[in-house]
Amino acid sequence: MIKASIIGGTGYAGQELIRILMRHPEVEVVTVGSRSFAGQKFSDIYGNYEGLTDLLCEVSNIQEMAEKSDVVFLALPHGLASKMITEEILEKTKIIDLGADFRLKDALIYEQWYNIEHYNKPLLDEAVYGLCELHRNEIKKARLISNPGCYTTCSILSLAPLIKNKLIDENSIIIDAKSGVTGAGRGTVLDVMYSECNESVKAYKIGEHRHTPEIEQELNLFNGGDFKLLFTPHLVPMNRGILALCYANLTADISLEELKELYKDFYKDEYFVRLTGDKLPETRWVKGSNFCDIGLKIDPRTNRVIVVGAIDNLIKGAAGQAVQNMNISFDLDEKTGIDFITDFPI
Amino acid sequence: MIKASIIGGTGYAGQELIRILMRHPEVEVVTVGSRSFAGQKFSDIYGNYEGLTDLLCEVSNIQEMAEKSDVVFLALPHGLASKMITEEILEKTKIIDLGADFRLKDALIYEQWYNIEHYNKPLLDEAVYGLCELHRNEIKKARLISNPGCYTTCSILSLAPLIKNKLIDENSIIIDAKSGVTGAGRGTVLDVMYSECNESVKAYKIGEHRHTPEIEQELNLFNGGDFKLLFTPHLVPMNRGILALCYANLTADISLEELKELYKDFYKDEYFVRLTGDKLPETRWVKGSNFCDIGLKIDPRTNRVIVVGAIDNLIKGAAGQAVQNMNISFDLDEKTGIDFITDFPI
Amino acid sequence: MIKASIIGGTGYAGQELIRILMRHPEVEVVTVGSRSFAGQKFSDIYGNYEGLTDLLCEVSNIQEMAEKSDVVFLALPHGLASKMITEEILEKTKIIDLGADFRLKDALIYEQWYNIEHYNKPLLDEAVYGLCELHRNEIKKARLISNPGCYTTCSILSLAPLIKNKLIDENSIIIDAKSGVTGAGRGTVLDVMYSECNESVKAYKIGEHRHTPEIEQELNLFNGGDFKLLFTPHLVPMNRGILALCYANLTADISLEELKELYKDFYKDEYFVRLTGDKLPETRWVKGSNFCDIGLKIDPRTNRVIVVGAIDNLIKGAAGQAVQNMNISFDLDEKTGIDFITDFPI
Amino acid sequence: MIKASIIGGTGYAGQELIRILMRHPEVEVVTVGSRSFAGQKFSDIYGNYEGLTDLLCEVSNIQEMAEKSDVVFLALPHGLASKMITEEILEKTKIIDLGADFRLKDALIYEQWYNIEHYNKPLLDEAVYGLCELHRNEIKKARLISNPGCYTTCSILSLAPLIKNKLIDENSIIIDAKSGVTGAGRGTVLDVMYSECNESVKAYKIGEHRHTPEIEQELNLFNGGDFKLLFTPHLVPMNRGILALCYANLTADISLEELKELYKDFYKDEYFVRLTGDKLPETRWVKGSNFCDIGLKIDPRTNRVIVVGAIDNLIKGAAGQAVQNMNISFDLDEKTGIDFITDFPI
Repeated sequence: MIKASIIGGTGYAGQELIRILMRHPEVEVVTVGSRSFAGQKFSDIYGNYEGLTDLLCEVSNIQEMAEKSDVVFLALPHGLASKMITEEILEKTKIIDLGADFRLKDALIYEQWYNIEHYNKPLLDEAVYGLCELHRNEIKKARLISNPGCYTTCSILSLAPLIKNKLIDENSIIIDAKSGVTGAGRGTVLDVMYSECNESVKAYKIGEHRHTPEIEQELNLFNGGDFKLLFTPHLVPMNRGILALCYANLTADISLEELKELYKDFYKDEYFVRLTGDKLPETRWVKGSNFCDIGLKIDPRTNRVIVVGAIDNLIKGAAGQAVQNMNISFDLDEKTGIDFITDFPI
Repeated sequence: MIKASIIGGTGYAGQELIRILMRHPEVEVVTVGSRSFAGQKFSDIYGNYEGLTDLLCEVSNIQEMAEKSDVVFLALPHGLASKMITEEILEKTKIIDLGADFRLKDALIYEQWYNIEHYNKPLLDEAVYGLCELHRNEIKKARLISNPGCYTTCSILSLAPLIKNKLIDENSIIIDAKSGVTGAGRGTVLDVMYSECNESVKAYKIGEHRHTPEIEQELNLFNGGDFKLLFTPHLVPMNRGILALCYANLTADISLEELKELYKDFYKDEYFVRLTGDKLPETRWVKGSNFCDIGLKIDPRTNRVIVVGAIDNLIKGAAGQAVQNMNISFDLDEKTGIDFITDFPI
Repeated sequence: MIKASIIGGTGYAGQELIRILMRHPEVEVVTVGSRSFAGQKFSDIYGNYEGLTDLLCEVSNIQEMAEKSDVVFLALPHGLASKMITEEILEKTKIIDLGADFRLKDALIYEQWYNIEHYNKPLLDEAVYGLCELHRNEIKKARLISNPGCYTTCSILSLAPLIKNKLIDENSIIIDAKSGVTGAGRGTVLDVMYSECNESVKAYKIGEHRHTPEIEQELNLFNGGDFKLLFTPHLVPMNRGILALCYANLTADISLEELKELYKDFYKDEYFVRLTGDKLPETRWVKGSNFCDIGLKIDPRTNRVIVVGAIDNLIKGAAGQAVQNMNISFDLDEKTGIDFITDFPI
Repeated sequence: MIKASIIGGTGYAGQELIRILMRHPEVEVVTVGSRSFAGQKFSDIYGNYEGLTDLLCEVSNIQEMAEKSDVVFLALPHGLASKMITEEILEKTKIIDLGADFRLKDALIYEQWYNIEHYNKPLLDEAVYGLCELHRNEIKKARLISNPGCYTTCSILSLAPLIKNKLIDENSIIIDAKSGVTGAGRGTVLDVMYSECNESVKAYKIGEHRHTPEIEQELNLFNGGDFKLLFTPHLVPMNRGILALCYANLTADISLEELKELYKDFYKDEYFVRLTGDKLPETRWVKGSNFCDIGLKIDPRTNRVIVVGAIDNLIKGAAGQAVQNMNISFDLDEKTGIDFITDFPI
């Protein structure tokens, strides 16, 4: 059994992680750390665990956790993980960080988008960007896995085959993404009060969202370029799910059928990427699962390609992918414990 | 492996059943019958199954299904199952009927509430009412299990300990229940169009809902009485979940703590009934699970007891309990394949 | 033109009041007081007012407001209004208080349910309970009008004709009410975060909600009794609306048709009470309006009557009724400025 | 008083129109035509009208309506209005058509996008495209006003100043729009059943939605060009509202402040267009109103401009604009009867 600890276990992503790990056949949850709820029973914070666990939230001590765990998951606001993780800790345990601190390889870009100093530049090189479908081999050997963001997972998987095959003008990329409200976390902020965001839709941080440079970093790896794209997130009145519409100008002369074949080929070994064929992805079909659904469309009138990606922001966009990374890292079948079929309608 | 077939697999309850059975470690889904979608791929009807199954919907032939299945589940509108099931079929396979045809023991009451003739009175005696927590021993031996309704499961489990212990005036019982919209099924009816039922709440069929006699039948079994109760259902703008508020006048002098102990004792061996202690049940904590959460309150000002029950209408209220019945029937651990922790927030 | 000021104008009820008053043909809004937002433009707090008003929120000075206003509305948490209002102020202006401080005539009961001392007992006698349909004549002459609560308005109007006509056992009354989320106000509390209350329903404060004694006080006025009732509120995932199911045992031998006639007669002069005849009220039909819809049902099996009431909690349950009180008080047509037809589907 | 009749009064847009007209100080509703509900009381179809009107739905006879009405509104599926309207009718009454039949000036384009023959080509030239802010002078003189679509109103108003001032590469325009569910109408279709579209978001008809050529037609009028754009609609789980994100590559060297000034100037006389300054539009602030809110953003990294437009699809996107057209047409103050402040939170 893999002994796992979680720091930041009472946010939405942390809680989802604990839920998955509690039913994972190869994992034992050892410790749950939570600043805000230390001393409380986990089932008192989240009523779905009533009668199912005696877990107590503890003040997080990463040293102790590292001693007694095979893997420590961190689900923290940015700026905290980079202070906690040291060479010494990495010698004792694997780290899977669900936060943003080790996603961007360039500390300058991090500092520019996050407006704080990066506290652990030496580890940036070692950290592996844990987008499983693209970095599986590095993940296998990594001590420190930086789990991707939710918007980024969906956007990168949607665009990767187009970029790799040089079919589009990279400078024409626009990503218009929509997210459910859990994406904003569990903080009691006016904007995500029920009556403030229910029955309304809005765009926010147009061109300024922190997932932008992360998407650019990963997509530029394919061709060694340095293109920029425009990313627009939206808040949609639903609990979960991300839908990303990725627009780009086609530079190649390619038919929709050829494009679909090319995507099929690119993802032929990937269980968690599903191509939706003649249909378009909808968040309801991936909610509660670790799947990323991808659909394709060509607009012949404007010679554009539109890729539609859909994931569950808390699963493939956070906790599910974290466990997928753990499975890869511990040489388990990648699907173990995360092979959920979406419950519908839920 | 238990070979299972489903008739009526494309309604919400049928689909939920297939989802559960597909991940059940001891079950193989053999046939899915669907009048409306015969010939279509199941994954074309429900996009969550994309890439996960090649199941085709077939015209239901219960004879053939009975030959090749260890158990056949029926999820049909009332009046159909009673025509299909025969002695001959019951000799070949077990039947778990999610519909209403065999729930009421008294054909006259059935005919009065359902406004149609009962087509199979001889089997009424044999059919076992599959409320697992109350009829486990009969379920073990049954050939024909009649799976309870959603409102009824929640209401009966909430009230049983009170009735059995003769703590209340049975004639004072009022059940005020609230259901999510999936309770209405997948028919394209104006009332359950998004913009018609979203952002609104309503009561319907006050005192006239067909689950009323079912609740009365089961609760009257405890004391051999014949009391009547008032049952009021509501439609609440959410996909899933039932919350039942059960009101009754206390006749015994009992404290809240004593009452809680009594419930604890009554359900001490029941994994799927959870008592929420000082908190009250909320549907969000049971959604997607097979649990029935029960909370208790006494109003000293009016000397009333209020029992609050919560379930997922499609799981403990339909497909989950059907599988629980199957597990009991095939002598498996009752939790097998249905031990879900609620995914939250979803 | 009636000069009106509002203290506590940035909560949901206060804001709704300002919206109504801004379009009221006989009113000019003079001052908006807001502790939390003093100095800010009202349209910066609520984007619906963009371009429509230059109103600035000010620190509330009730003395100054009283000098320059014909009426001052207070929309404050309990315990504040009773400290602000003095004899001197009432000599200068009329007060319509949307809070709870002057609703209960008995200071002891107030102190018991609100857990604080009552700061202004001398004015309790003078204050008029502003349920327009029941106290119109007193409202006309009042200097201090205490606007009823939302649950209470709906419950009292639903039950009044039954009580007055002595048709029920008063001790059998149970009110099971459901409210939209705006009823909880605009405070950033975990329970009313989108992902915490969306897609779920719960009961809360069973038998302990502060509107209980208010309903009892008003209904006991009819027969000079002292009966107690059980009131249960629920939180439903929708922005607005209250639905109250009122249950009682019939003591009279009365048919449904006779009962309907009796209600028709009771409310024959009331524009804002609508009897729904053969249909039952639903919150969608009253949302955004000042109507209270009432429907009736008799359950012959248990000899109970069920009255269903529906209102918009922020309009007939707060701001709309406050303006109705103002209209009565200033001898305007009672409908002026509040004769809204529900916008549907919204 | 203007005598008004409505054909197709029981769909969502027709009903909204009747609601507005019933409270319009200069209008009397004479006849409501409805194929599906002929003979029924309007208040039996829509419960919000309970007690407020005796209107009966009638079989639509446009000849009779034309005789006794000053204006006839049509709210019909495409292909019907073009068959009904004749020269003879236009001599008797003004027509405001909320459907699509007279929006596209080029019958070939109509036939290509709507897949049916156009039944009334001779009237295409006379019909005036009723986007009030752009065609006010023609509307004043028109006998036949073709009310714009919902997506189109929002998209055209958002982009017009950019196009007119030649600030962008017109071939780079992408419109990513999101709509509430009422946009799909009141037909009982599976896709808009509550449990099918609740808690999910999807794109549909990418590049193929019929509002595309309408937007192109109007925007190309400014510079006499023939550019094509890509339009993508989405279904969002909310009753009302449209949010359109309009992306384009800047060709001019212009600052955000200059751009805002330019929009201010363009819309300086328009009451119903509001510029949101430093904030971005959200549908909650326009819902229930006739406003179109517009916000602007420049992304310096990719040299793109993003215009965000928001309207209520049933008001400014349908019934409200139809009444605005009527007001212009009958020389009333343009705001008469449609100067609503959004009710919030609703």
